[in-house]
Amino acid sequence: MPTNPGSPEVFEQRDPNYRARVEASFARQKAMGTLKIALVRVEPGEVELAFPYQDELTQQHGFIHAGVLATALDTACGYAAFSLMSPEAAVLSIEFKINLLAPAQGDRFRVVGRVVKPGRTITVCQAEAFAQSGDKSKLVASMTGTMMAVVDRDGITH
Amino acid sequence: MPTNPGSPEVFEQRDPNYRARVEASFARQKAMGTLKIALVRVEPGEVELAFPYQDELTQQHGFIHAGVLATALDTACGYAAFSLMSPEAAVLSIEFKINLLAPAQGDRFRVVGRVVKPGRTITVCQAEAFAQSGDKSKLVASMTGTMMAVVDRDGITH
Amino acid sequence: MPTNPGSPEVFEQRDPNYRARVEASFARQKAMGTLKIALVRVEPGEVELAFPYQDELTQQHGFIHAGVLATALDTACGYAAFSLMSPEAAVLSIEFKINLLAPAQGDRFRVVGRVVKPGRTITVCQAEAFAQSGDKSKLVASMTGTMMAVVDRDGITH
Amino acid sequence: MPTNPGSPEVFEQRDPNYRARVEASFARQKAMGTLKIALVRVEPGEVELAFPYQDELTQQHGFIHAGVLATALDTACGYAAFSLMSPEAAVLSIEFKINLLAPAQGDRFRVVGRVVKPGRTITVCQAEAFAQSGDKSKLVASMTGTMMAVVDRDGITH
Repeated sequence: MPTNPGSPEVFEQRDPNYRARVEASFARQKAMGTLKIALVRVEPGEVELAFPYQDELTQQHGFIHAGVLATALDTACGYAAFSLMSPEAAVLSIEFKINLLAPAQGDRFRVVGRVVKPGRTITVCQAEAFAQSGDKSKLVASMTGTMMAVVDRDGITH
Repeated sequence: MPTNPGSPEVFEQRDPNYRARVEASFARQKAMGTLKIALVRVEPGEVELAFPYQDELTQQHGFIHAGVLATALDTACGYAAFSLMSPEAAVLSIEFKINLLAPAQGDRFRVVGRVVKPGRTITVCQAEAFAQSGDKSKLVASMTGTMMAVVDRDGITH
Repeated sequence: MPTNPGSPEVFEQRDPNYRARVEASFARQKAMGTLKIALVRVEPGEVELAFPYQDELTQQHGFIHAGVLATALDTACGYAAFSLMSPEAAVLSIEFKINLLAPAQGDRFRVVGRVVKPGRTITVCQAEAFAQSGDKSKLVASMTGTMMAVVDRDGITH
Repeated sequence: MPTNPGSPEVFEQRDPNYRARVEASFARQKAMGTLKIALVRVEPGEVELAFPYQDELTQQHGFIHAGVLATALDTACGYAAFSLMSPEAAVLSIEFKINLLAPAQGDRFRVVGRVVKPGRTITVCQAEAFAQSGDKSKLVASMTGTMMAVVDRDGITH
């Protein structure tokens, strides 16, 4: 059941086929396969991703690189927004901001993105990344991102 | 010659060995090797990185994923800050914000990070990413990041 | 009862006198009196402010200026962080980011700031501003802010 | 002569009447009069504001409140963007992020906003605030903001 911070409404999708549309677009993101980031769950206005700890994605102290967290958080924001868009729209990130709250150490990472405010052109999302070790889960990063619906722009298809 | 937006000063490094220190830390970032991001230039308060277009790092429209740009920009910010820190300090990103200004299309990407305001604990940096095709260069993303000097924290070494 | 997005823990204050300390510092912020922003509620890690619509604080379309919202949101973040700090610390804002979600129209504005991640030096907060008209409340802006505890710095007292 | 960080181009205005249009809109921002923020200079894609130190706009340590700086920086960003828009557009801030770089102490404050990337719908700007005392000037805050051109929306006129 999606919850949205400060905004308890459950969003209505404009496209009953939203889940297949998100899955198809996610599958075209080659960066997701390269970084082993998987799409776990899609609801109207909420998307969950997961990826395992990978030594080859670390920064100098052996934590997952902040940019890798940003990649997953941005993707979660983008598809949370995309799930509420009309079928002919493509989604682009305009900007995002991430706070790194704790070292990204753990066996596995779970990332949840949610729409805070949907709009015809601009959708604002928040996302959180949790490091999981055994049955423990710790918030390691949070993001606010601004996503734009784009229709009929050269080279950008939904 | 480093230039800093709004702050024309040339920074003095506290550690004459700053370049070797940056290079050694960068070499420990396994994510850099995985994403083929290279360290091109290190000056006091300024670092330049570069990476080629890679199909396996794209988002759904074939552009380089915003998170990959963020990874390079964050790293450029981090090492620009680290170049001015004292030898016993480690550097961590507290937060960063990226604006995506144009589709990340090109043969090669150049990323320049600069210190805007150095500090004992907190250093603020800006970074820009340029897409290069032939002899053309286009600004595709900009970042502002806040970096922290950390001394004597468990599991975090310089 | 304070709730924190993505982090359901209730924070423990380090200083049993936190409420009086927040109130005394708030009273020294002359900008609060000038903008008629009142301190409504203080809990450990959570602060609520309120202010009426004021024609003299509007932007060109008659909405409350985004910067005025930012002033209240930043103050709510700062005192949410300050409520968890030790008695000898002062609080400074390092940075904040605000998203304007809807036009700031209404009779009265309520602003709630919460600690997301407390720390010895760095505390990350989120805050939300709601426009209220009659019995309706609408989320109009959200902020993420990074606050720093400062001890023994010239000219900065708790 | 306007300069834009990372983007040395001089922008062309779409509306030869841009200066009068900015001045008229600025004059409708009642918050500017209340906070004594003056419009000093308007160029295509660049706007300069100024305001004196005012005791009634301070935070708890006697510095100008970060939210007041944000108000001026956001306005400078908005009108830098607006100066390049077509005559029928209104401008709204979508989001902004500010870094506080030094205590806002001084006799007078100068704020310069510049367009980094203009666009039909979205324009990205940067702005800087300088504290001035005698003939000294110090960078105290920087902002990145995302501005939107709005046409034909209820209640929002250019």
